[in-house]
Amino acid sequence: MAVAVSTLYVLAFAGSIVALLFALLSTMKVLRQDSGNESMRQISSAIREGAVAYLNRQYKTVAVITFILAVVIAVALKSYVLAIAFVLGAFLSALAGYIGMMVSVRANVRTAQAATRSLKDAFDVAFTGGSVTGFAVAGLGLLGVSVLFLILKDPHLLIGFGFGASLISLFARVGGGIYTKGADVGADLVGKVEKNIPEDDPRNPAVIADNVGDNVGDCAGMAADLFESYIVTIIAAMLLAWTAFGASPATNEIILPLVLGAVALLASVIGSLFVKASDASRIWPALNNGILISAGLSAVGFFIVNKLMFGHYKYFLSAIVGLAVTVVIGYVTEYYTSTSRKPVQQIAESAKTGPATVIILGVAKGMESTLVPVLAIIVGAFLAFTFGGGFYGVAIAATAMLAMTAIIVAVDAYGPITDNAGGIAEMSKMPESVRKITDPLDAVGNTTKAVTKGFAIGSAGLAALSLFAAYRDITHTTVINIYDVRVVVGLFVGGLLPFIFSSLTMRAVSNAAMGMVAEVRRQFREIPGLMKGKAKPDYARCVDISTKAAMKELVLPGVIAVASPLIIGFVLGPEALGGLLAGAIVTGLLLAITMTTAGAAWDNSKKYIEAGNLGGKGSDAHKAAVVGDTVGDPFKDTSGPALNPLIKVLNTIALLAATLIVAHHLF
Amino acid sequence: MAVAVSTLYVLAFAGSIVALLFALLSTMKVLRQDSGNESMRQISSAIREGAVAYLNRQYKTVAVITFILAVVIAVALKSYVLAIAFVLGAFLSALAGYIGMMVSVRANVRTAQAATRSLKDAFDVAFTGGSVTGFAVAGLGLLGVSVLFLILKDPHLLIGFGFGASLISLFARVGGGIYTKGADVGADLVGKVEKNIPEDDPRNPAVIADNVGDNVGDCAGMAADLFESYIVTIIAAMLLAWTAFGASPATNEIILPLVLGAVALLASVIGSLFVKASDASRIWPALNNGILISAGLSAVGFFIVNKLMFGHYKYFLSAIVGLAVTVVIGYVTEYYTSTSRKPVQQIAESAKTGPATVIILGVAKGMESTLVPVLAIIVGAFLAFTFGGGFYGVAIAATAMLAMTAIIVAVDAYGPITDNAGGIAEMSKMPESVRKITDPLDAVGNTTKAVTKGFAIGSAGLAALSLFAAYRDITHTTVINIYDVRVVVGLFVGGLLPFIFSSLTMRAVSNAAMGMVAEVRRQFREIPGLMKGKAKPDYARCVDISTKAAMKELVLPGVIAVASPLIIGFVLGPEALGGLLAGAIVTGLLLAITMTTAGAAWDNSKKYIEAGNLGGKGSDAHKAAVVGDTVGDPFKDTSGPALNPLIKVLNTIALLAATLIVAHHLF
Repeated sequence: MAVAVSTLYVLAFAGSIVALLFALLSTMKVLRQDSGNESMRQISSAIREGAVAYLNRQYKTVAVITFILAVVIAVALKSYVLAIAFVLGAFLSALAGYIGMMVSVRANVRTAQAATRSLKDAFDVAFTGGSVTGFAVAGLGLLGVSVLFLILKDPHLLIGFGFGASLISLFARVGGGIYTKGADVGADLVGKVEKNIPEDDPRNPAVIADNVGDNVGDCAGMAADLFESYIVTIIAAMLLAWTAFGASPATNEIILPLVLGAVALLASVIGSLFVKASDASRIWPALNNGILISAGLSAVGFFIVNKLMFGHYKYFLSAIVGLAVTVVIGYVTEYYTSTSRKPVQQIAESAKTGPATVIILGVAKGMESTLVPVLAIIVGAFLAFTFGGGFYGVAIAATAMLAMTAIIVAVDAYGPITDNAGGIAEMSKMPESVRKITDPLDAVGNTTKAVTKGFAIGSAGLAALSLFAAYRDITHTTVINIYDVRVVVGLFVGGLLPFIFSSLTMRAVSNAAMGMVAEVRRQFREIPGLMKGKAKPDYARCVDISTKAAMKELVLPGVIAVASPLIIGFVLGPEALGGLLAGAIVTGLLLAITMTTAGAAWDNSKKYIEAGNLGGKGSDAHKAAVVGDTVGDPFKDTSGPALNPLIKVLNTIALLAATLIVAHHLF
Repeated sequence: MAVAVSTLYVLAFAGSIVALLFALLSTMKVLRQDSGNESMRQISSAIREGAVAYLNRQYKTVAVITFILAVVIAVALKSYVLAIAFVLGAFLSALAGYIGMMVSVRANVRTAQAATRSLKDAFDVAFTGGSVTGFAVAGLGLLGVSVLFLILKDPHLLIGFGFGASLISLFARVGGGIYTKGADVGADLVGKVEKNIPEDDPRNPAVIADNVGDNVGDCAGMAADLFESYIVTIIAAMLLAWTAFGASPATNEIILPLVLGAVALLASVIGSLFVKASDASRIWPALNNGILISAGLSAVGFFIVNKLMFGHYKYFLSAIVGLAVTVVIGYVTEYYTSTSRKPVQQIAESAKTGPATVIILGVAKGMESTLVPVLAIIVGAFLAFTFGGGFYGVAIAATAMLAMTAIIVAVDAYGPITDNAGGIAEMSKMPESVRKITDPLDAVGNTTKAVTKGFAIGSAGLAALSLFAAYRDITHTTVINIYDVRVVVGLFVGGLLPFIFSSLTMRAVSNAAMGMVAEVRRQFREIPGLMKGKAKPDYARCVDISTKAAMKELVLPGVIAVASPLIIGFVLGPEALGGLLAGAIVTGLLLAITMTTAGAAWDNSKKYIEAGNLGGKGSDAHKAAVVGDTVGDPFKDTSGPALNPLIKVLNTIALLAATLIVAHHLF
């Protein structure tokens, strides 16, 4: 039994429209909420203005680069269609991030206000706010790919669309990561360490920049990252199907990725309706249930779709492998980063012998934590390959995993909203009872951040593998031989890139933080009465400093990411470039997992001690754990996550330049 | 013009004999020196006994494993010749380490005594002692390979010999690394931190174990590591020549690696005679000159040999590339780890904002430091490949690099001798003037350790690449295709291994150190009068604890190193195993450079502050730098160096099992 092709396209289209409508309804629901008193609104609007300032500057910078690259693409590849698709990809990704941020920075104050009523209400506002980002990302992604494919009728032209998303992702992740940690570390170094004032104190000039950073990093950065993974995976699957199963928009295998996306979006809308919690202990279970219900319903949908479209279950099995990988990675990440598990408690324990042992054990645990996720990915890839009869199966597994994007991003974007809500409650001196509600909401945010980061890395790995397989089809290189000395060179250069990239982003955070420290010190020195709370600091200037620093510091990593595949490709040929892609995926994945896990584990070791264990706050063990937490900041929020767009952008550039490189290379 | 084959073999034989004679003469020269007063001799003999105890236990353990593996090899590969070659390789490597250690632990006290006369004399004794290890390693290596090849007439049978050396190297590096840092960290945690007694204080029960550790790690560990690299590279080159140029012991390309080794040994004997220094500022220049003169004379010799043997200069050019890579890596390592350069000073500067910034910047610098060495290795490999007309050229470059082993190990083994000499001077309360001489000798030891570690890693990378190429010939797999999903799995597993290995060795150090802390605390508690210096601690027990911990903790990493290539090979086939080798070489090299450079840079940042900069000893900056130094200890002395034998042992096992794997694998 077959289904009409037009029905399938309608389904894909309908899925994305439903998701976008849901995002719209959620937005309206958030905006309907009470935005609190004057003082709260003032703080919230300062955060909002900071976020807008950052996004405006980032998008202005990106617009210029996008324009230049569009011209380069149009000229070099002689295709204005590719160039337009590229601009569209960049635009939609930016739009998804923009929508998400705009709602986040309005949901924060409304969550704080709702917390005056009950935890249930506050949780509902925060998660609804997060859902906007999640469904905007997946909805716009699926809509863009579906409509563009319907018009262009050739997935090769969608590569431009994917590259546009890659570019935004690189900027948002790297820039956002530098911004958020530069502001955070800068605020803490002067506020907590030198002036002895608490976190989120309104006297600290960097406090607004710090709150902006939460949105910029965890909301906009994650959104762009997963928007990219989402669409490039679908495109890669379509490209693979194009070569393997027939170059026509009517080929079922080409439409399948779109249909899986639509099915999962519908499932996720239902799943997200189940996310309700009325007491603190039920917060994480509620979010987790939302994910599991969405995944379960998606699996059922995938089964039906497979039966109707193909009459066999090959691709269903590959898709299930993708969902299984998601679950395994989520579980392992939770294991290594939860305060109620051994790894975090052991790191906390090691704080008794000082900061050095905290660092050593954290790094060791971070490295150890690569084992199961990497094995899950390769066993998953191997099984999906076997079930699906080739790399198309791997791409379907990746598509299925990324089909969970809406609900995962919703859960992730929930984090900065509650984090901000707590900050606003603190700064506007709301009653203690409010913090008693926002604190547990925020604490769960740490787990959601870690789990979604694990998801983002794992899915980026599978996405990159799918792109890499598509690279084979486009370059017609059926063999990339490791015995070829050019491939060896490529492998090493690829392996090197994540190390250099991490080194640069880590130092960028230091530089940004140092700039912030200087400014905060200046304001405390030059603004009379600031320390006594009688004068207001110049928040905007701190926001501006972080913004400028982020833009400046992302230039070099950005250039390296774009230039190195082109240099290796045009000098040593497409096989060497293939080696580079493989090398970068391997070390990128390993380093990203190591750094994000270690960072989250350090963060929670500190929280474990602060909860009263091992001497509690202020003890020597606590001081040692704070060192681990500070080291972990750039690890988990800048350098680690920045590797996701790196390994994808390398692959999309390679795909884009593939035909040129095949035609013209030196050796 | 051709040279008679017999002349070439005589040359190779003569080179190794001259080297061994030189080692013997150096030994006699050391033993002739005055071994000081009764108190010095007592301490020295305690160190000696500890070293003997460690080596005996290690070799006993290794002997059992060697015997079992020899039986396995004889049965599985149906070749008692391979099994005997294997035992011989293990024996000679162990012997070289044993000779080196035995002379080191005698040269230490004599260096201390010579320091009562002059710096010139003390330096001479220390370097002469180090030369014994260097020339024993290279001399025994070359002698073993040459004689074995003359008897067996087939380089394939030498693979057993190489694997024997690999096994010892793995044990000596991993076990030695765990021992030395377990003892060091354990001694410091109780001595310096809890009891406030200085380094090398005789009241500290772990002080002898700490001094034994210097020899076990830097002398025996490095010796075994480079012994392995030295011979496996020669064997790999011979294997490549066997396939490419004619399967006969009379083929010039097969003899060339032996001849290069012999020429470089003769050059190094001459070079080492120039190593003389009469004041502190001339110590490093003297050692460096020894290396440069040896390298220069070797280059001249390589040129003449090439002309006489081939009438062309192809291989000479490849060899020069190998020497150039050595120089570049040496320079870069010195740059990143010297107190007079920017990186170390920047890390020291960052100590002003606390330990977290020290760690972040150190990791960032460590990662950054991979750039030039890795580029040097791949550009070198590419050039050597091009000049030499294939992977044989790469193997020749690696052989030329490793031909410097004698002088490099001599310079390295100098380090623990002077370190021990300082310790003996301190413990036996020799006059201040003696420390004034041993301190600068020891300070240079930090540079020599860092530079030789860079050499060991770089050469291990090139050695592994050569073995990898030989793997192609043996498995007759002309293609290892990255598009093959089994190869992808192999690549990821290979990439994973160095991360897991590092995680395990890091935690092993923590475990060993914690055991030591408990024992030292117990002795201070239970031995009356120990703290007041009225009773002697039980040194032997601490030595025993470290020894047992090292043996226990190396089991799991050892099993992983041996088992994973076999599992991947027998399950997924020789191509997947090839992927594993490539993945492990890439991430192994990157991680090893990152960790050893960061560790050495932290160490010297601390020393830079202790020299009176940024507030000097006791300042907050100093405390922060101490944290970096402690984190760096397992990075630079355990986990980082342990990756060298890992990437080589994976390759030698693969070579050994290759024919079996080709014949029997699951997929």
